[in-house]
Amino acid sequence: MSRIDLNCDLGESFATYTLGMDADVIPHITSANVACGWHGGDPLVMQKTVALCRQYGVAVGAHPSYPDLLGFGRRNMSVTADEARAYIKYQVGALMAFCRAEGLELHHVKPHGALYNAMGRDPALAEAVCKGIRDCGKNLIVMALAGSAAVEAAVSLGLPVAQEVFADRAYEEDGSLVDRKKPGAMITDENEAIARVVRMVTDGKVQAITGRDIPVRADSVCVHGDGPKALAFVRSIRDALQKAGVTVAPLREVL
Amino acid sequence: MSRIDLNCDLGESFATYTLGMDADVIPHITSANVACGWHGGDPLVMQKTVALCRQYGVAVGAHPSYPDLLGFGRRNMSVTADEARAYIKYQVGALMAFCRAEGLELHHVKPHGALYNAMGRDPALAEAVCKGIRDCGKNLIVMALAGSAAVEAAVSLGLPVAQEVFADRAYEEDGSLVDRKKPGAMITDENEAIARVVRMVTDGKVQAITGRDIPVRADSVCVHGDGPKALAFVRSIRDALQKAGVTVAPLREVL
Amino acid sequence: MSRIDLNCDLGESFATYTLGMDADVIPHITSANVACGWHGGDPLVMQKTVALCRQYGVAVGAHPSYPDLLGFGRRNMSVTADEARAYIKYQVGALMAFCRAEGLELHHVKPHGALYNAMGRDPALAEAVCKGIRDCGKNLIVMALAGSAAVEAAVSLGLPVAQEVFADRAYEEDGSLVDRKKPGAMITDENEAIARVVRMVTDGKVQAITGRDIPVRADSVCVHGDGPKALAFVRSIRDALQKAGVTVAPLREVL
Amino acid sequence: MSRIDLNCDLGESFATYTLGMDADVIPHITSANVACGWHGGDPLVMQKTVALCRQYGVAVGAHPSYPDLLGFGRRNMSVTADEARAYIKYQVGALMAFCRAEGLELHHVKPHGALYNAMGRDPALAEAVCKGIRDCGKNLIVMALAGSAAVEAAVSLGLPVAQEVFADRAYEEDGSLVDRKKPGAMITDENEAIARVVRMVTDGKVQAITGRDIPVRADSVCVHGDGPKALAFVRSIRDALQKAGVTVAPLREVL
Repeated sequence: MSRIDLNCDLGESFATYTLGMDADVIPHITSANVACGWHGGDPLVMQKTVALCRQYGVAVGAHPSYPDLLGFGRRNMSVTADEARAYIKYQVGALMAFCRAEGLELHHVKPHGALYNAMGRDPALAEAVCKGIRDCGKNLIVMALAGSAAVEAAVSLGLPVAQEVFADRAYEEDGSLVDRKKPGAMITDENEAIARVVRMVTDGKVQAITGRDIPVRADSVCVHGDGPKALAFVRSIRDALQKAGVTVAPLREVL
Repeated sequence: MSRIDLNCDLGESFATYTLGMDADVIPHITSANVACGWHGGDPLVMQKTVALCRQYGVAVGAHPSYPDLLGFGRRNMSVTADEARAYIKYQVGALMAFCRAEGLELHHVKPHGALYNAMGRDPALAEAVCKGIRDCGKNLIVMALAGSAAVEAAVSLGLPVAQEVFADRAYEEDGSLVDRKKPGAMITDENEAIARVVRMVTDGKVQAITGRDIPVRADSVCVHGDGPKALAFVRSIRDALQKAGVTVAPLREVL
Repeated sequence: MSRIDLNCDLGESFATYTLGMDADVIPHITSANVACGWHGGDPLVMQKTVALCRQYGVAVGAHPSYPDLLGFGRRNMSVTADEARAYIKYQVGALMAFCRAEGLELHHVKPHGALYNAMGRDPALAEAVCKGIRDCGKNLIVMALAGSAAVEAAVSLGLPVAQEVFADRAYEEDGSLVDRKKPGAMITDENEAIARVVRMVTDGKVQAITGRDIPVRADSVCVHGDGPKALAFVRSIRDALQKAGVTVAPLREVL
Repeated sequence: MSRIDLNCDLGESFATYTLGMDADVIPHITSANVACGWHGGDPLVMQKTVALCRQYGVAVGAHPSYPDLLGFGRRNMSVTADEARAYIKYQVGALMAFCRAEGLELHHVKPHGALYNAMGRDPALAEAVCKGIRDCGKNLIVMALAGSAAVEAAVSLGLPVAQEVFADRAYEEDGSLVDRKKPGAMITDENEAIARVVRMVTDGKVQAITGRDIPVRADSVCVHGDGPKALAFVRSIRDALQKAGVTVAPLREVL
């Protein structure tokens, strides 16, 4: 029987600013990617978010970013491999302290935004990030774009990897995500999005934007909690997966 | 036989900016307080500094601060107890990742600048900071101003404490440091400074600014590495302590 | 006939984070205090907010803060007079560039949060802030707590001053605001709040928390735009003022 | 008779950190590019640096950067045109307040580091930056890499331009700087560097790395003040220019 993890970015509020409906989405997911203060999040938010994960039994992951609060970590930055590795260590280490205080173990690391995308394309950056993760713990799961350079880097370094797929994004034939600026990049029909995810999980296939089927491995699906519509979608996708005989389960049971 | 630890703030360089002569002072000290990026230091500097500590066998401590890079952590800020506790966790956790990567254990935590001073006076703040330290590890040593509220808070929480004394500062009769703005606050004569430290360590006494002797417990002496004169002083004080039969030793052997 | 200005803090969104319903409140006010990036706001938000002010003919003021994004500028910080003066210049200057680009003149400066409160109590800080404002332009109006040390400092330096009153806050007999932590500090009954403001404007008096009437000068009333309830209150207070024969008018026409 | 401006980046110290020998180099230059707090500099440093410029009669320019204090503004960031324009306005506006307070006019704007390089290559970014400069003042001189896209953008927008050349860098045949990572990118022989500058100024030519002469327009030469060697070089180049009959003069007299 197929199993899939549902992950969501949480703890992206900052200072007096609230972002996302964390308390509403958390009952429906199995993994949380918790912001570490460099694109969103701050120490009080991290503490609160980790406590929320404990309350709901959701696995805590770190969601480290480029140092770009002003750009919410969504802008490319030409950091060196040494910088990337050290930046990961700093942010993941900070989150680990909040986990320890709650009696939890950090479970996975999913880089955020532009860093996530860049390490999917750039093997040297991916290696640096994965080394930073390994520095923090040899059992930490690297969550990375399915089929990307980031997956290869983690595998080369002997780290456990969770391959992530996206419900609302179109794929190129090589398995990369279609650039958001291109027409057709976003899957806007909800039923189509759900059907694609179910197929990715049960058949290991997805139709690329060219019309051709490509293989894909889905260990985790990224969902969002940033509005009522996003929340409704999480519930729909969860229901559809269960109807299709897929068990929504924590990553450790999926891998 | 008396024992004393010599501690120094290291790793306070930031980005392209260099501060302190870390590589020159480290052979002469037994404990390093490593900046965590909030008043000085950054991930690359933290990595380099922890590696330097490993090379010289110096115990690594965290040196967390108020969030005030612009003021080098030297300005009072009215943070709440919850904020203080979370800020400590964030910074200490970040440094622990660099220690782990070098195969080291974090040894102690010495808050920086205005936060250090404030927790010496304010029991509620001291408790919050000490709880943040305990969250990171129950064996972490709290390094705090000898005889201050910070020492009491750590003791109340059952944490190991290292009481710190200053060679270049005058003391009030209650054991607090004389405000830097008052005349006589700084001990500018090097020989006097050294004689005072030797007496604090061997006799447990220091002459307050009023002329009266007061008791003081000295587990660690703070030294500086921010210039050739400071370095010469470190060597002098080390020699004087050894001549007086005091062993300069890591904190774990002192406590 | 009495005149009064209605001012509101605008442009406090930051990066991806939205705060306040700026576009909804702006039709009802005559002065906007625009955040300058140190407690909220960023260059894109500043640009958009100044353009909004131009569209609605609302006078633009700067809303500078302590350097404390993490604490939204609400925490006391022990900055020196030189620092305060330079911080004001930096932030006010930055906003002036956005005004110039929109063909507007900067009109007033109202410090934010903890800095506003501190300069109401501390004559030396108030003088430093006012000097920073004067450095930016001799005609800039200082908006300050009615009757406070900040008003005195501005007057001493020959700067135009707008005395500000609060609808939702109780006053001590000396004209200072009752500490938010004390019982009765907030005026929670909306009709009472409105009646108090009308009386402050038309009679120059307000009942202090002790029950005694005290004199108060009201050039501007602070209103909020951070929720549907706040917006409804702005409309109510505007209506009540007009019914009482008070003209809501820009500061230049009030002073 | 030929004229040339000598410009240097100043005011790059930050908080407790000192960078550069500003007071030593300023007597030898005619234009200062003053950091605006985003890669280096802070309000107190800006104030002090502008006062120093006034004392020595050196023209003040703004030296705005990407928002990257951690990377000293030397890393590429994918900012949008709207962001770039607003970032320039913010930083240039902030510096203008310090000029106004000293009774000076801001004279020019030279973007820093990665932003300077990127606008030399990217016409859309160059246009956005130049529009940000024009927003601050129609007479502000844009200082840009000689022959680059940045020069074209400024000319298209009708802004005065100063074309800048480098003594210590090799040129490609298209007038761009040879990438620092390539062999031969740096002119390490001091006499050669000086001879090249004199030729650029007097003949309008420089030998590209390929060996072929290319035309170059030199309105200003970039010099450094970050060490005793750099200072000696400034004096040497100044002497050599004067011996060659070139007058070292402020930009306004050069253009």
